[in-house]
Amino acid sequence: MIFDLGIDLGGTNTKLVLTDPRGSVVRRAMFRSEGAAGPAAWLGALEPEAFRLLDGAAPRSVGLSVAGLVDQRGRIAQAPNLVRFVGVDLQGPVSAWWPGARVRVENDVNCAVVGEHRAGAGRGCRDLCMLSLGTGVGGGLVLGGRLHRGATGLAGELGHMVLESEGHLCTCGRRGHVEAYLSTQAIVARARRFLAEALPGEGIWLREAVASGRTPEPQVLSEGADRGCELCRSVLAESGRWLGIACVNLAHALQPERILVGGGVAGAGHWLLDPAREEFEHRAMDAIRGTVPIVGAALGQDGAAIGAAMLGREALDDPAGGTHQSPRE
Amino acid sequence: MIFDLGIDLGGTNTKLVLTDPRGSVVRRAMFRSEGAAGPAAWLGALEPEAFRLLDGAAPRSVGLSVAGLVDQRGRIAQAPNLVRFVGVDLQGPVSAWWPGARVRVENDVNCAVVGEHRAGAGRGCRDLCMLSLGTGVGGGLVLGGRLHRGATGLAGELGHMVLESEGHLCTCGRRGHVEAYLSTQAIVARARRFLAEALPGEGIWLREAVASGRTPEPQVLSEGADRGCELCRSVLAESGRWLGIACVNLAHALQPERILVGGGVAGAGHWLLDPAREEFEHRAMDAIRGTVPIVGAALGQDGAAIGAAMLGREALDDPAGGTHQSPRE
Repeated sequence: MIFDLGIDLGGTNTKLVLTDPRGSVVRRAMFRSEGAAGPAAWLGALEPEAFRLLDGAAPRSVGLSVAGLVDQRGRIAQAPNLVRFVGVDLQGPVSAWWPGARVRVENDVNCAVVGEHRAGAGRGCRDLCMLSLGTGVGGGLVLGGRLHRGATGLAGELGHMVLESEGHLCTCGRRGHVEAYLSTQAIVARARRFLAEALPGEGIWLREAVASGRTPEPQVLSEGADRGCELCRSVLAESGRWLGIACVNLAHALQPERILVGGGVAGAGHWLLDPAREEFEHRAMDAIRGTVPIVGAALGQDGAAIGAAMLGREALDDPAGGTHQSPRE
Repeated sequence: MIFDLGIDLGGTNTKLVLTDPRGSVVRRAMFRSEGAAGPAAWLGALEPEAFRLLDGAAPRSVGLSVAGLVDQRGRIAQAPNLVRFVGVDLQGPVSAWWPGARVRVENDVNCAVVGEHRAGAGRGCRDLCMLSLGTGVGGGLVLGGRLHRGATGLAGELGHMVLESEGHLCTCGRRGHVEAYLSTQAIVARARRFLAEALPGEGIWLREAVASGRTPEPQVLSEGADRGCELCRSVLAESGRWLGIACVNLAHALQPERILVGGGVAGAGHWLLDPAREEFEHRAMDAIRGTVPIVGAALGQDGAAIGAAMLGREALDDPAGGTHQSPRE
């Protein structure tokens, strides 16, 4: 049996999937990656997990997804949650385990958008954008059917598009970025602000949830919204409006066939996506309106690992690594 | 001799170029197009101009550039300065003049970016963005060496990306778009505002220029800046800062190898581009900084006509019309 291995190194967990030649997942595994422990400890933990998953087989290819910016040499250029991995060569040690396999390293949302494009909510699209909303806000672009990597492999940083020139401070130190309005932390801060400004009779469910020690993060807000808490709904609706503006920028620039929304924050579902769609239709140019659906991602937490396996496999046929292949004219 | 004909229909003038098989311009012409007079009058004026330019020859291909959004069928979907052309078939009548030639209709900045990519300031780039600053702000994208047209051909509306969620009103009726900060009119309004707020001793050159009946448009501001008028410099610098923010959004999303700035406003040259570059470096993420030069376009007013001729010629080999050709996987 021929297998491709996808590994998704996140700040907290590492996920592994083994796919067959049709791209179907045949086995999966997960372990706590303790990103803070650094690359040597991580490689030490990964090795037995990967060999156990492979059960004696050797993978044809390995795709390694990392939560950070990956440059054209496959090195991590920037990674707020994996700082000890920056500049480290992961390709070398992983290649050494399976000398016959090609190993490719790629940004996690780039992997996720490829997974969605080949096997998820983006199937059949030529041009596809994905926003992944979580601790940070990442992005990925499939353009002309291929992952768009840009001049030095750093394209797709959709979380760092400016929506307000002097807006909220982003984790990257600049102002007004998408991430400053749509990360988990940004939404938690919005919930606390809405609570602080609420009248005594408002937001009782959320007030009690917070009083009982829960953090007002998107999953909690979504639960409250389901239970009828108007304040929770307002926080998610306001967040959705920012998402809608970000989608307008993508649609006006790229007019993809679809914009996918993934990541933990997207778990808030229609409470987030419906206001985003409404804001989008309100703000999109007449000719663009109605042409770019905003859709939830389909592969969930496994998306990056699945996409990594696919990119690893495709790298076999395409040594340039999934970038655009058209000749320069 | 084999010729390709490029026609650029603008709101005021129509330009024609005839190119040889190597893409060099061999002849050019221009006439006042009186866009407001509508398509029948325009076709009536175009026919003799084109035949005179061709001097008995028939073109191998015709590329028609229009200042408006062009859909995938080659029809104008939206065109603020050519309202009577919306929905009109120009391909049919032009094809009838030269039955052997393939005729392609395309948005003007899409044409211009192709011209710059093949023969101007974007030569050798795989991924290239262009902003054209004039009456409106248009955009064009070459990605993976090919014109990026999007789901229904309307991609590249870079003038309608949001920079301020509740910012200045754009001509399209929405708020905070690039165009609302960088069109000729936006810059004129900024100059008048700066003048109104200036202290008595400030901006004397500009004050006198305006008093003598000149409109404080970018060319005038640039002249004043050259002559030492600090107020003119400030207006262009502030405009440049908005341009820099727009470029940050393009760089973070797409990381092109270069961003070109064209159109009449770009005539303000370094007074506009230097502050744009400074703002860009200030706002770009660490890993992106220094990787995306902002450069003036090279082909000037002929860019769209030249690019149209090239797109027409390429349409011969590529019936899908210059969109991405990678197979869907």
